[in-house]
Amino acid sequence: MTTTFDDEYFMKKALQEAEAAYEKGEVPVGAVVVIGDRIIARAHNLTETLTDVTAHAEMQAITSASGFIGGKYLKGCTLYVTLEPCQMCAGALYWSQISRVVFGAEDTDRGFRAMGASLHPKTILKKGVMAGEAAGLLQQFFRKKRPRH
Amino acid sequence: MTTTFDDEYFMKKALQEAEAAYEKGEVPVGAVVVIGDRIIARAHNLTETLTDVTAHAEMQAITSASGFIGGKYLKGCTLYVTLEPCQMCAGALYWSQISRVVFGAEDTDRGFRAMGASLHPKTILKKGVMAGEAAGLLQQFFRKKRPRH
Repeated sequence: MTTTFDDEYFMKKALQEAEAAYEKGEVPVGAVVVIGDRIIARAHNLTETLTDVTAHAEMQAITSASGFIGGKYLKGCTLYVTLEPCQMCAGALYWSQISRVVFGAEDTDRGFRAMGASLHPKTILKKGVMAGEAAGLLQQFFRKKRPRH
Repeated sequence: MTTTFDDEYFMKKALQEAEAAYEKGEVPVGAVVVIGDRIIARAHNLTETLTDVTAHAEMQAITSASGFIGGKYLKGCTLYVTLEPCQMCAGALYWSQISRVVFGAEDTDRGFRAMGASLHPKTILKKGVMAGEAAGLLQQFFRKKRPRH
């Protein structure tokens, strides 16, 4: 059996990160950064654990990928993230000049597009990869967190 | 002689941080976070030193202030920053629900307002405090960095 390194493959890795966040009681969002077929950074949301609003999965993945590369620009890289980035994360991705961003579930409320923020003009955006799985995990988290009673 | 703890006083402290960035060859932007008359976080841009586009002065100041408070929300706090925040930093300030943001020089190119990003609706914005000093330091930095020859 050969492995197909496509967008679904890498989004599954991001979903594994989201599941790790879920297990810690964090809003389950995960991200990986990829060059070619190689994952160079993995991260999940840690805002509660670190008591820090800046600890979104994407922010940590950007910092980690830059550390791996030894440069602050992520040209040639793709970020896979389970939820549409917020304006903070879109802003960080803007500065990184990352080549491609692939996200799962849309965030029509706090997503960067709804908030009016922008990715870098050179960044290619793809949305909706395994969106159902990503959204399902988020719904499960918030149902558990805010029970109806 | 009594000290007046006004916006100019705290912006001068942010400018001292910007000067520290300048000395390190970093784009000179500095920030402090204040509760009442007390500075609880000081930071300056370290994107080159840390090889990390997320290392803006405001991002570090938010993380540091949250660590001091022991909570991720910065209600009751004011951030003073020498340059208008970018969309990444505005996004982080949005999540922090900070009470007040005071900036010095406007950034008509990459500032959060030009980019379409938003602060939290509860955040009060004041601009132009010691703008000349902040802009002057930036101009001096870029003149030195990009000599005309």
